[in-house]
Amino acid sequence: MLEDIDTPALLLDREKLERNCLRMRERLRSHNVALRPHVKTAKSVEVTQTALDAATGAITVSTLREAEHFFGRGFRDILYAVGMVPAKVARVAELTRRGANISTIVDSVEGARALMQACDKAGVRIPTLVEIDSDGHRAGIAPGDKALLEVAEVLGDSLRGVMTHAGDSYNCATTDAIRAVAAREREAVVSSAAALRARGHPSPVVSVGSTPTATFAESFAGVTEVRTGVYMFHDLVMAGLGVCELDDIAISVLASVIGHQREKNWLITDAGWMALSRDRGTASQKVDQGYGLVCGVEGRPLEDLIVVESNQEHGIVARRDGGAIDFDRYPIGKLLRVLPNHACATAAQHSRYRVIDAGRVTQTWDRFAGW
Amino acid sequence: MLEDIDTPALLLDREKLERNCLRMRERLRSHNVALRPHVKTAKSVEVTQTALDAATGAITVSTLREAEHFFGRGFRDILYAVGMVPAKVARVAELTRRGANISTIVDSVEGARALMQACDKAGVRIPTLVEIDSDGHRAGIAPGDKALLEVAEVLGDSLRGVMTHAGDSYNCATTDAIRAVAAREREAVVSSAAALRARGHPSPVVSVGSTPTATFAESFAGVTEVRTGVYMFHDLVMAGLGVCELDDIAISVLASVIGHQREKNWLITDAGWMALSRDRGTASQKVDQGYGLVCGVEGRPLEDLIVVESNQEHGIVARRDGGAIDFDRYPIGKLLRVLPNHACATAAQHSRYRVIDAGRVTQTWDRFAGW
Repeated sequence: MLEDIDTPALLLDREKLERNCLRMRERLRSHNVALRPHVKTAKSVEVTQTALDAATGAITVSTLREAEHFFGRGFRDILYAVGMVPAKVARVAELTRRGANISTIVDSVEGARALMQACDKAGVRIPTLVEIDSDGHRAGIAPGDKALLEVAEVLGDSLRGVMTHAGDSYNCATTDAIRAVAAREREAVVSSAAALRARGHPSPVVSVGSTPTATFAESFAGVTEVRTGVYMFHDLVMAGLGVCELDDIAISVLASVIGHQREKNWLITDAGWMALSRDRGTASQKVDQGYGLVCGVEGRPLEDLIVVESNQEHGIVARRDGGAIDFDRYPIGKLLRVLPNHACATAAQHSRYRVIDAGRVTQTWDRFAGW
Repeated sequence: MLEDIDTPALLLDREKLERNCLRMRERLRSHNVALRPHVKTAKSVEVTQTALDAATGAITVSTLREAEHFFGRGFRDILYAVGMVPAKVARVAELTRRGANISTIVDSVEGARALMQACDKAGVRIPTLVEIDSDGHRAGIAPGDKALLEVAEVLGDSLRGVMTHAGDSYNCATTDAIRAVAAREREAVVSSAAALRARGHPSPVVSVGSTPTATFAESFAGVTEVRTGVYMFHDLVMAGLGVCELDDIAISVLASVIGHQREKNWLITDAGWMALSRDRGTASQKVDQGYGLVCGVEGRPLEDLIVVESNQEHGIVARRDGGAIDFDRYPIGKLLRVLPNHACATAAQHSRYRVIDAGRVTQTWDRFAGW
């Protein structure tokens, strides 16, 4: 029973997780493109196995700790999708020696040279993708920039292809805008791969990824794999983007009402930013959900209650319109569930998932942290 | 050497920690008021021992996990300073049975009744303070509200006194404003304790606490103890409030430059929000430090470079004025250090402190998380 677990706690609804995972697998299968799930959201072997519907498979990681953890659980095909630096070669080389097929990314001639020198020194060859900047959002080489071919020359036989992440898809106001970002994302890597091949560089990997573009892209022609992670859980940002429904959100934070501020019409809970994270991803969306949308213990959103402020171990819950709260409905000790703005950030505040089936906790799945 | 540790990593400058701790101890000693450090910021026994300049002592906690962890290391005098609910009585009772002197807080008649019923059921008596609301910031009973005396009646012999937290001190524009908040904080609990005593309730504990008010209060007359935690590390929010200098900030996040975006004048680092937290506490201050102020590897602020945006494992660093970056000074792999907005939030993203003395890592101190 949820009443038996200490609050705050991170709940994971297994039925919703499985539904979200199945939907993405079927969508990408229908487009004939491979899924390389990003494990950075869940940092859990069990969740990743659910995503793959298999004991192991190809994965994307954001830290070498993730790579090492998953390799230790039998995952061999690993893409480390954060710009590689020489100081990290030793750990990647060690995984390679132990049998991992781990690849890295670079986005500059300088970075490629530093990586190759470090690899030479370590006596290892690390397959490497060139990161392409499809939307000016973060890292990568812009499509058409001659630096791409210079990097390819430096990488030589280590070059495996190209990848991009359409991070700007998180800022789209409409589904059509996400489709346009997805088209740019695809075009950026497909054209870059073509440019490489035209110069004699085989580029077998053409990799894209973000949950919004993976959900709405109209074509994956020329793309070989899709990296995506948030879709497993979904969150309020995804719901605000129209990528999912509120009912698809698979994680929530179980909280207890610990106080009433009747004159201010506030409920105080024991889920502050330590349990919810400081993420305010919905602040720039049409509906600002504060630090999270409050549900009853059975998981149905109350819609009118949000976490309007958070301290370390205190959440302040109020009606969205600032109106009167019926305090009798929320006595001291009452359990609530809070849907998170950003699944990656909220899950990162916890060391385990309380897995619930039909409202009962049936398992505990560990998650890990660190680098 | 800092060059030998994997990035991102949390650094703790021991000399600054000791200086901050000594300053607060001396200040409170000169005011003849006890220090009950809040362990929620550091969640580290070693840091707390530095704060106390002793192996154990009275502490404040924000979670029962903190209480259990510190009790296991010999700390017996513990105040759990988050509103108590019946479901948490069993864990507190267990600590009490094992010899802890742990006290809790409530702020309503309903909460007090629920607590006393649960205590009766568990066959335990838990010393309890009444939380006073000194600034309308979060929880507590307003000074002068007759609910205080009703709560005292319900608590009976379990009543130990009153406490408050002047959270609004974080929003002050001037030192004078902090002094005024501190005066209100003191007055709120001293007058509440007097009201209780006038009705025959001995109230030995009169407890206040926040780093800004602890630093600037002109009087602690009638106050028996001060709870404060951030001062051990300090952070950019405290510097923005004038509570510390930048040079007092004892923690920083070591990061590597992983990319250049020359057209945008961005450095990309491997310290994103997973390493820095999503806290944007300086956003509402006179100087917005983004997600953190960038220092050279030796720890001196560069002043003009801040983390302007963060993704999970990427930080985007730019000049404050948006101007040109001299990329030759920051080659791929270059180490930087980032001062955090909010020490509690940034430290919470890490499982250990790399303790540095004179620029060298000399020890690793664990920190813990969870509830």
